[in-house]
Amino acid sequence: MEMLTFVLDDEGKDPLYHQLYEYIKKEIQEGRIKYNEKLPSKRKLADHLGVSQNTVTTAYEQLIDEGYVMSIERKGYFVQEIDNLLIFESPKENTTLKEEAVDRHIKYDFSYDGVDSESFPFYVWGKITREIINKCDAKLLTETESQGDYDLRQSIADYLRQSRGVICSADDIILSSGTEYLFYILFQLFDEEKIYGIENPGYEKLPFLFSSNKVQYIPIDVDENGMTLEGIEKSDPDIICITPAHQFPTGSIMPINRRVQLLNWMNGKNDRYIIEDDYDSEFKYSGRPIPALKGLKNSDKVIYMGNFSKSLSPGLRVSYMVMPEELMSRYKKELPFMICPIPTIEQRVLTEFMDRGFFARHLNRMRNIYRKKRELLVDCISRHEDKFRIIGADAGLHITVEVDNGMTEEELVESAAAQGVKVYGLSRYCSRDIDMNRILLGYAGITEEEIEKGVELLFKAWFD
Amino acid sequence: MEMLTFVLDDEGKDPLYHQLYEYIKKEIQEGRIKYNEKLPSKRKLADHLGVSQNTVTTAYEQLIDEGYVMSIERKGYFVQEIDNLLIFESPKENTTLKEEAVDRHIKYDFSYDGVDSESFPFYVWGKITREIINKCDAKLLTETESQGDYDLRQSIADYLRQSRGVICSADDIILSSGTEYLFYILFQLFDEEKIYGIENPGYEKLPFLFSSNKVQYIPIDVDENGMTLEGIEKSDPDIICITPAHQFPTGSIMPINRRVQLLNWMNGKNDRYIIEDDYDSEFKYSGRPIPALKGLKNSDKVIYMGNFSKSLSPGLRVSYMVMPEELMSRYKKELPFMICPIPTIEQRVLTEFMDRGFFARHLNRMRNIYRKKRELLVDCISRHEDKFRIIGADAGLHITVEVDNGMTEEELVESAAAQGVKVYGLSRYCSRDIDMNRILLGYAGITEEEIEKGVELLFKAWFD
Repeated sequence: MEMLTFVLDDEGKDPLYHQLYEYIKKEIQEGRIKYNEKLPSKRKLADHLGVSQNTVTTAYEQLIDEGYVMSIERKGYFVQEIDNLLIFESPKENTTLKEEAVDRHIKYDFSYDGVDSESFPFYVWGKITREIINKCDAKLLTETESQGDYDLRQSIADYLRQSRGVICSADDIILSSGTEYLFYILFQLFDEEKIYGIENPGYEKLPFLFSSNKVQYIPIDVDENGMTLEGIEKSDPDIICITPAHQFPTGSIMPINRRVQLLNWMNGKNDRYIIEDDYDSEFKYSGRPIPALKGLKNSDKVIYMGNFSKSLSPGLRVSYMVMPEELMSRYKKELPFMICPIPTIEQRVLTEFMDRGFFARHLNRMRNIYRKKRELLVDCISRHEDKFRIIGADAGLHITVEVDNGMTEEELVESAAAQGVKVYGLSRYCSRDIDMNRILLGYAGITEEEIEKGVELLFKAWFD
Repeated sequence: MEMLTFVLDDEGKDPLYHQLYEYIKKEIQEGRIKYNEKLPSKRKLADHLGVSQNTVTTAYEQLIDEGYVMSIERKGYFVQEIDNLLIFESPKENTTLKEEAVDRHIKYDFSYDGVDSESFPFYVWGKITREIINKCDAKLLTETESQGDYDLRQSIADYLRQSRGVICSADDIILSSGTEYLFYILFQLFDEEKIYGIENPGYEKLPFLFSSNKVQYIPIDVDENGMTLEGIEKSDPDIICITPAHQFPTGSIMPINRRVQLLNWMNGKNDRYIIEDDYDSEFKYSGRPIPALKGLKNSDKVIYMGNFSKSLSPGLRVSYMVMPEELMSRYKKELPFMICPIPTIEQRVLTEFMDRGFFARHLNRMRNIYRKKRELLVDCISRHEDKFRIIGADAGLHITVEVDNGMTEEELVESAAAQGVKVYGLSRYCSRDIDMNRILLGYAGITEEEIEKGVELLFKAWFD
């Protein structure tokens, strides 16, 4: 080919070299310049088009980089073979409107999710964050250790020792972003044959998580003291997942005797483990907090999971687990590529927040706030004591109630919704149906005023 | 039992109720108070010990909560059966010294990890963070949507359209915390039989990640244009993982012809996919950036992965993928429980950072900084042009060199280390040995001065 001719737009926003590049690319793509054809020399084309040689060079180099053209020394520029006709889509807007999923008619939501949104220490959090970022420390730009920032793990170990009776060191802890990410690690460490026993009713995420990860699990019934030994013995799992501090969702606290039984079960065979999810253990309203299972003797093989979702905010996405020694050494050996998912800045902020005593202060404050909400909720309900049985109100951020009005669970939920109140039937947490006509009422994210009005509407829905 | 007697410490820090609780618990644990024994009534014990009845009540309630004691109405308090002797470990310090893993004698590290640490926009980042936190928005306390904050996904979609020729909408994007977390999602979506083809040499994390997740993979050799079609046809994988923008680690840019061939391979069967990791595509030094594979026609089934580790900082832990429509609808249906691991505050900050144009400005600035470093590195090496062959210097944040001095790769790495310079042999990235005597030199995290001095020492190590 002797020459290429086309009109350059000198006034346009697109630089000349790019116009040239686009033009030649299109000619090649659309087959008008053929395979092996020689392009004009740079000098000639520049003269011809009245542009600088640099412009042509840049365009040609781009074509070479993208594989449209090949440069052969001393010979010139030749069009490459393109297997197929191929066009770059021209960039265009392609946006879909944001969905706003709302139950429009719901005014009072006794959801278990969320925290008291007025009490987050925005000021202190912002102040510490500013301080940390202002240090301009290059370390903020690197990933933390695979297990997470050492100092943060140390602060968590201190907290666990003081508040949960769990004796561990920073080395035993892995930080991550939530239950599914902690299990991601465990799924990689345990072999595929392992069978997990999960609470029924229990945390609704687990069955989904296990089945999407092709992991075998068995729902095991809980009684008023938590997962039953009979259930465990019948199902014969290798690993059980339990919430002894405040069974989710029934709200029961596992008594010491059951705890010891479960530990004994675990220690009865080498390859058995207990995963203790201490998800809202920060909140207990009578007496002192009950030490974790992991704080008991012979609990070495207990994998302890905790997080800051209830104690600070689910928006932080910080969770952690305390690993048995042998599992941890396997983690270090087998999963060296795992990077802690929590941003380095946030890990530093949380460390400072804990080390300067703000976390302890925040917890104490929240305990009072939630205690008041809980008392109000229990009070409001107790006005109709004969028609309600309250269960699991001693800890955590939700209670459950049995309603004695002849309605099914579904009818309870639906009649409440018709009054603009959202409540949660316990069957949604059951992997296997059990006869349990109960409603869960969360109170962390709802105001005191809303609690009063919400319960009033519940009465209307259920007893009028 | 008629009475319990022990000495209360009125002056101590431990509240009286807690001393009482601890005392009784210990008596039970150590078998001095037996199963079924009745505890003194609250009134009597309070009188006896000279404390308020409240103190005793609180202690008893704690014992009841923990399952040591049972209250039987009108009868009193009875000790429960404890299966085994059991002792709460007494909290004590158990800290291990932080390990400081350093190659003490290394002065110049041509690592591929890291970014230019002096150029992170700490000031702007801190300012935006402060603004966001100061809003005290309750939404900051909730998790974002499962796919990540909608606005951030929209900003990323805009960026991808403008900079990478990838046409997608916010709805097509999932945000997560890094390669292993993106693959976690894919592992759950794809069935177990899928075989992944990975580049050899390639990203060293993938073989570990795949095998720890019990996922089958086959290393497929790359030539100077990337993964070969012959290799793919021989290994017959279902999904291939490639880095066409800048093959890691060899540095080659995949020409258009190979790209089309791979797309054709993908479209040859229904269940084939390509995972395109566009890991450092922001940096290309001649011509305009090459559009991503996902920007080409017939690339619907390409899963595009990107991140902010090279363009901003690995400490942020933000990555994303653009999903094919059908996979995304399965994600929504099958993995509704997955929560985006990125903290909500950080997602908001990054969105603002992008929307106000800071990201584009930062990228332009970094392109110049890295371009200068790259030119310096290439210049320094070119002083001994006859002894080096530089490969893959047109893009990204590393180059590779072949050294013609008769040394093996191991000898090259070790003799450099002896001079205090850390370089990386390409064999560490090989799943299967291939004859490739090459060294990787990263230059993002090293200063210009260090580049000059480091290369000088390399000459000394390799040619003196």
